[in-house]
Amino acid sequence: MKNLVLASTSTLHGQEYLEYLLPLIKSHFRDCSKILFIPYARPGGISHEDYTATAGKAFEKAGLQVHGIHEFDSPHEAVKQADGFFTGGGNTFLLVQQLYRNDLLPALKEAINKGVAYLGTSAGTNIAGLSMKTTNDMPIVYPPSFNTLGIVPFNINPHYLDPDPASTHKGETRETRIREFHSHNPQPVVGLREGSWLEVKGKNIKLKGDLTARIFEAGKEAFEVEPETLLNDLN
Amino acid sequence: MKNLVLASTSTLHGQEYLEYLLPLIKSHFRDCSKILFIPYARPGGISHEDYTATAGKAFEKAGLQVHGIHEFDSPHEAVKQADGFFTGGGNTFLLVQQLYRNDLLPALKEAINKGVAYLGTSAGTNIAGLSMKTTNDMPIVYPPSFNTLGIVPFNINPHYLDPDPASTHKGETRETRIREFHSHNPQPVVGLREGSWLEVKGKNIKLKGDLTARIFEAGKEAFEVEPETLLNDLN
Repeated sequence: MKNLVLASTSTLHGQEYLEYLLPLIKSHFRDCSKILFIPYARPGGISHEDYTATAGKAFEKAGLQVHGIHEFDSPHEAVKQADGFFTGGGNTFLLVQQLYRNDLLPALKEAINKGVAYLGTSAGTNIAGLSMKTTNDMPIVYPPSFNTLGIVPFNINPHYLDPDPASTHKGETRETRIREFHSHNPQPVVGLREGSWLEVKGKNIKLKGDLTARIFEAGKEAFEVEPETLLNDLN
Repeated sequence: MKNLVLASTSTLHGQEYLEYLLPLIKSHFRDCSKILFIPYARPGGISHEDYTATAGKAFEKAGLQVHGIHEFDSPHEAVKQADGFFTGGGNTFLLVQQLYRNDLLPALKEAINKGVAYLGTSAGTNIAGLSMKTTNDMPIVYPPSFNTLGIVPFNINPHYLDPDPASTHKGETRETRIREFHSHNPQPVVGLREGSWLEVKGKNIKLKGDLTARIFEAGKEAFEVEPETLLNDLN
């Protein structure tokens, strides 16, 4: 059965990388010896090697080891052999482009559906939705499609940010952007605030963390859901 | 000779739509009787009709009339016959998708290169650059390409926003996003703050407005340029 943790962010303000997720990581991957790290999103342009070292250092604190997918001759084979996945944040366009370039989406989806444990943060969470069309990232590369894994039956907006009533900036608010998305797309969107994550266990999708999440459905008023709410019927 | 005004934003905080640009609009389009408005970017999902009415109301204050491109049987013919263009802001992905769908980019580029006056705000400014890869917008639709008009030999980031030192949010800053862009693309990026615009007259590209702009070049430190600076050699 599916077993995913889809976190809005890797890092909370004032904390170290993955710090708030470490207890969760420890239990989520407790039976895993071949955790595959997917560093394709390269935050700030960091190399695959450096990004893998960063993730490795954090996982070490949970007594776990990760291997970067770029270390394998066949990324496809690496996905098939892994008994755990961590896809880190960064640029979603780049992540999705690389996943398509290496034809990894079907294999990744198959493994996840079989129950291989998956952790995503930010861009790595975004790709668990139906499409990457609710990413916040800049389109720095052109992927062959915006369709993603569709492990959950909706879209996710990580790093969800409430409008700042004091702002004088005229760029669109996050809520306006998601309303624009709904002018062209039917699926619901979960606005996942930093510190929140979705726990997917089999058919159950549960909001975790201390904060509410904001749910956007086409043609309806947005609304908040409390932690521990099941989002199974959101589609 | 080329004759463009490329504004970061249509609207300044506390002002009405296009208010700060009205004197400029009046002189920019003074000889124009067939100004074509391109409402494809549909901010907030507004209809082409409503968006054109909004633009029309503002232009009226400058004694000018606009027609929405959607009112014409042949958008292509409308572009060829116009003696002025205004492309409004909204979602750049949607704007670019519609421009490709109607095969308008070559005709628009030809008209602009012949000297037809052009005004862009936000998304309408973005498309004057080499690509839309430095837009801030959400990828709500999948355009067939990210390549745009290339009227200026660099990319533009409208609504440029300085990092907020007080922010606890962990989403990428604008500067980080542009650095990520430069991991994959060579062209310079002009970070154009709200209230600034580029004036393109023939070969001259000049920064206008009261604010400095931030220039990003691959592999270099970003730097500020003063109003009235010529950006002709930025490529």
